[in-house]
Amino acid sequence: MHALGKHLLVELRDCNKEILNNIEKTRAYMVAAAIEARATVIGEHFHTFSPHGISGVVIIAESHLSIHTWPEYGYAAVDVFTCGDVLQPCVAADYLINKFQCTNPSVIEVKRGMLSLDGKALPHKPAEGAAIPYDRSEELQMVS
Amino acid sequence: MHALGKHLLVELRDCNKEILNNIEKTRAYMVAAAIEARATVIGEHFHTFSPHGISGVVIIAESHLSIHTWPEYGYAAVDVFTCGDVLQPCVAADYLINKFQCTNPSVIEVKRGMLSLDGKALPHKPAEGAAIPYDRSEELQMVS
Repeated sequence: MHALGKHLLVELRDCNKEILNNIEKTRAYMVAAAIEARATVIGEHFHTFSPHGISGVVIIAESHLSIHTWPEYGYAAVDVFTCGDVLQPCVAADYLINKFQCTNPSVIEVKRGMLSLDGKALPHKPAEGAAIPYDRSEELQMVS
Repeated sequence: MHALGKHLLVELRDCNKEILNNIEKTRAYMVAAAIEARATVIGEHFHTFSPHGISGVVIIAESHLSIHTWPEYGYAAVDVFTCGDVLQPCVAADYLINKFQCTNPSVIEVKRGMLSLDGKALPHKPAEGAAIPYDRSEELQMVS
């Protein structure tokens, strides 16, 4: 049995509420988390809720990261979905736990696509026309 | 205990491989699934892999839907993440199982953000500047 994807369900409880309601910081941290995990960022989309809260997705060549924040409860639901052997989704999770100043996190790893492939691993497939719109150093500087 | 989000992890095994490799159909089905579940679609991003496979995210005001397909194995990993009481994420899952002609699906529901809120439900918060770029009838016509 081989799993095609690794999916981390990250529960960020007891975070810094101010950061959870700051769309620029949240966007920058999510993109940087993807880069830290060695993902190729293709795009992102973030939006705010009224009166508070942020939702966002970072599209990576190796799948996606998403976040939904409830600043009023100091909580965010993060997903890190990756495929391929190079990426380290746990690095992204650890990075976000740190950046959101989360003191009560939990992480569940779900293996997606547990198929009978005779033990063969699937090599990562490159995304067609994949581009990296973010300069790594600039992004990391922005959130440091 | 009250959960802020409902998250369906949908494993679509034994699907129609041709549909899984058709980006236009996959995009249309995912958007239509969101609309069927009464979500407000804000945007979407889909891309193809080389030599085959599609990844995509539909951003909705109530969270997101995502898909990653492996046509070579007839498999797709779908996530339906929703908040609020109006949406029916199972409707989206059922719709996709049908449209991808999946004969071996499984669905796991994960409650996200199980916080101690004294049993209070959180009303859905509207996304600021949320727009519906898709005409429902046109979208449903396209995929019927």
